[in-house]
Amino acid sequence: MGASLAAALRAVDFASHIVGIDENPESLALAVERGWLDRGAAELGPDAADIVVLATPVGAMPDLLACLQPLISARAVITDMGSVKGPVAQAAAELSLPRFVPGHPIAGAERSGPSAASAALFVKRVVVLTPREGCDPEAVAVVRAMWEAVGAYVLITDAGVHDRMVAYTSHLPHILAFACADFLAEEAEDHDLYPFVGAGLRDFLRIAGSDPVMWRDVCQANAVLLAPALVAYGERLAAYGRALVAGDFASLQARFAKARDFRETLIRETDRGEH
Amino acid sequence: MGASLAAALRAVDFASHIVGIDENPESLALAVERGWLDRGAAELGPDAADIVVLATPVGAMPDLLACLQPLISARAVITDMGSVKGPVAQAAAELSLPRFVPGHPIAGAERSGPSAASAALFVKRVVVLTPREGCDPEAVAVVRAMWEAVGAYVLITDAGVHDRMVAYTSHLPHILAFACADFLAEEAEDHDLYPFVGAGLRDFLRIAGSDPVMWRDVCQANAVLLAPALVAYGERLAAYGRALVAGDFASLQARFAKARDFRETLIRETDRGEH
Repeated sequence: MGASLAAALRAVDFASHIVGIDENPESLALAVERGWLDRGAAELGPDAADIVVLATPVGAMPDLLACLQPLISARAVITDMGSVKGPVAQAAAELSLPRFVPGHPIAGAERSGPSAASAALFVKRVVVLTPREGCDPEAVAVVRAMWEAVGAYVLITDAGVHDRMVAYTSHLPHILAFACADFLAEEAEDHDLYPFVGAGLRDFLRIAGSDPVMWRDVCQANAVLLAPALVAYGERLAAYGRALVAGDFASLQARFAKARDFRETLIRETDRGEH
Repeated sequence: MGASLAAALRAVDFASHIVGIDENPESLALAVERGWLDRGAAELGPDAADIVVLATPVGAMPDLLACLQPLISARAVITDMGSVKGPVAQAAAELSLPRFVPGHPIAGAERSGPSAASAALFVKRVVVLTPREGCDPEAVAVVRAMWEAVGAYVLITDAGVHDRMVAYTSHLPHILAFACADFLAEEAEDHDLYPFVGAGLRDFLRIAGSDPVMWRDVCQANAVLLAPALVAYGERLAAYGRALVAGDFASLQARFAKARDFRETLIRETDRGEH
């Protein structure tokens, strides 16, 4: 995601100088070679940037903010790209960082790293910003301008609203896909199930290819909202199982029809133009 | 699926005459207009075909076979495209139809009907045939030749093996996706969750766009094998929930990593060339 943002900002000539900071020198070398970065660095120097964008797993962010605080100038704007907003917003408030603007681009893919990066990743995608009360409006405007420059739509909302919504629309489906792949892995140990796999399962499990550390952090950061969603989904699934065993196939058909209707609405409501 | 097969057979000039039978005259008219069918009909006439392919929901097939039996000649070969093989194979055996060859193309999409048809649908896709003992080998050879003519790979196995494998690789994921869409539909009644929907959820829910009647029939026909798979998956999901509540994020990370590994194996093992 960081490399994609660098590529996208470079493509629209948003910044005169883009520095990438990563613990992996090969990632940095590749991003420099492709022209997305002016240079790579192992760590941020003092007064090094007007805008700092954090693109790490969310668990690393509170400590990272604490490390950054003495290094950045008072005028630097900081934002992030994490999938959970409450904890990082709280950390920024405790550190008195009024120019930190929590952000989350609803974009990305199961692959990560600069080899999977795309300058078009954010075009027509929603980026959610969740500034707290007391957040500097000028910092919010800077971050909004950055995202709009790379073609994204900016939505400003509350961190709690964001975290609850993504628990349903993103975190729950990831858990379901991880659990399904994990479950099928055991079945595949005893049976050759690969000939019976179609495109449906492949699409369904695409998000199970996501980074395990990133998703551990997401689960940890959003556990309080994710756990009840998971329980409620499990109850729904158990009801399907009871209908199956009881032979109540008419009620299953009715639920499938409701599901299909919702999926059609979802496609229509989120059709912002495909890449 | 029926229209796609007609289109594919026409494209390779497999048959001198292709007749489509459907209760919807508009579907037939479209398939005739596109040149896939020589003509459409509301019902099968006596001695009407060398090969009869059933492309209805699986629940309709046993009765359909019983209706067909007096109409078809002794030399006609019958096959089907249903997702569950045990019940239809059993029905054919009870009707003494040794030239019925149960089949299941592992292909298709969530959309159905001739407007969604594609002559390339079966290219490099697996078609599973599950002839019973006593099935005429010449009939199996005819059905195999038909599928190979449209570019598919034919796998011959036991109906019980097929039904157990697809319970895991197809029917369970469909149930999970239907249940997720059904669950999110209620959340969407109270909250505007669409801005928070990314490509991950859209791919994950693609199979929830499938036909409710077809999937009611699949659930009914394969309930005995699907129910325990659903229970076992539910237990896996409950274990994820317990880890989430207990704060055992290291074990979640380990499961996610196992899931990702399996998904990578799955992609590699099932990469038969994409459309």
